[in-house]
Amino acid sequence: MGNYESMDPKDIRELIRKQVITGSTAGMSKGYTQANLVILKKEHAFDFLLFCQRNPKPCPLLDVTEPGSFSPSLIAEGADIRKDIPKYRIYQDGVFTEEVADITEYWEDDMVGFLIGCSFTFETPLLESGIPVRHIEENCNVPMYKTNIPCQKAGMFEGPTVVSMRPMTPVDAIRAVQITSRFPAVHGAPIHIGDPSLIGIPDISKPDFGDAVTIKEGEIPVFWACGVTPQAVAMESKPSIMITHGPGCMFISDIKDEKFSVL
Amino acid sequence: MGNYESMDPKDIRELIRKQVITGSTAGMSKGYTQANLVILKKEHAFDFLLFCQRNPKPCPLLDVTEPGSFSPSLIAEGADIRKDIPKYRIYQDGVFTEEVADITEYWEDDMVGFLIGCSFTFETPLLESGIPVRHIEENCNVPMYKTNIPCQKAGMFEGPTVVSMRPMTPVDAIRAVQITSRFPAVHGAPIHIGDPSLIGIPDISKPDFGDAVTIKEGEIPVFWACGVTPQAVAMESKPSIMITHGPGCMFISDIKDEKFSVL
Repeated sequence: MGNYESMDPKDIRELIRKQVITGSTAGMSKGYTQANLVILKKEHAFDFLLFCQRNPKPCPLLDVTEPGSFSPSLIAEGADIRKDIPKYRIYQDGVFTEEVADITEYWEDDMVGFLIGCSFTFETPLLESGIPVRHIEENCNVPMYKTNIPCQKAGMFEGPTVVSMRPMTPVDAIRAVQITSRFPAVHGAPIHIGDPSLIGIPDISKPDFGDAVTIKEGEIPVFWACGVTPQAVAMESKPSIMITHGPGCMFISDIKDEKFSVL
Repeated sequence: MGNYESMDPKDIRELIRKQVITGSTAGMSKGYTQANLVILKKEHAFDFLLFCQRNPKPCPLLDVTEPGSFSPSLIAEGADIRKDIPKYRIYQDGVFTEEVADITEYWEDDMVGFLIGCSFTFETPLLESGIPVRHIEENCNVPMYKTNIPCQKAGMFEGPTVVSMRPMTPVDAIRAVQITSRFPAVHGAPIHIGDPSLIGIPDISKPDFGDAVTIKEGEIPVFWACGVTPQAVAMESKPSIMITHGPGCMFISDIKDEKFSVL
């Protein structure tokens, strides 16, 4: 991994395309933004684009391909979203049917790819400011929860906001608000701090997705809108076909994380 | 106007709907965000939404209506974009054909309304920080220029970025960068400072839209991406019908300017 951490995104994508890299992309091409992927057919694309537009905190769009194009040219020249992610998941009528390493055979010429920001982008500056990130310390996935905060509906798409949670001291929480406010294009500031029950989370030790992490004495949970939201919402609407990245297997762009900061 | 300045947006919109107010909305409902309007038919809506998504600095979307809906419910509950703007312009096949006070008779049930942020939102905090805004001092329209900075193309929509210009001292320019960086949802930071020729403006005294303003000794021009860009770009593509607000006659939302700041 030491090697992959300092490699150029383009070179990592090539190793993924050749299926040399087949698992999680966490930590690869450090400093470059990684993205979630949702692919839908054109008939759903306007509603989904509108959904993301209306819900920028959970659904920060980094790039959207032209209908039929598999090239996310704004964030990765020459990349191919059909091949450059280690694992894809195929959902048919809202049901997960298959995990594959290449979706060329599923690609249709009216498909649109949505590349959506992920919290990896703001975890780097948190760590650089000396704020410990628990799930990284505990080497597991970030805990994620469904909340009672509804997203703004758009056409066929609606549902609750999913949040990710990082426990920290109150002083670190204040600093984390400042740091992540600099990144409105990648989830931005937290949407809740403290009592989980206020946003409809009954038991903080039982996340809906990802893994539970330790909350130490004196720490408070800090909640950010999560990129899992648009996938969960799209799935609920049971489109005939939807393709996503596999968990932890992200698209690595050519854009530096810092490019997404406003200050 | 003293009266209109402190009136609620809802009450102003009612006076507009009754055609009591028929001209510029500048200065009305102080502190509430005003918006540009573009209405297109559904067939162009995905491409236009994608264009705005790809070009957030000139095209900051505040709300997009569902196809066929004339209610911008995210930013103004109960409003009607067919009636709540003092003047509308109708463009047929890219040609300006008529100015009207109500577009009910032009409304079609597949139309989509795009409400786009305008620089009024960041001029208030500039003024409050003691930075003079020249076109307000000179009581004219802000000068706007076509540049050689291309927008990111989306489907049928492409064209150059239009900028607005405010001259100020270098110290004020630095402060203005800080202030407007707080508003990424409403044009954000400037896109150029200084030499106009570097962005393809041959003569700063001859704006393409709006009015020329005085640039005093020791001042530099500061350029922001301008909400006229999406209108200009949409017009270039000659859709069968496009409806916009009339110059200076904006949609007044229920959202406070400060709501759009990230810090």
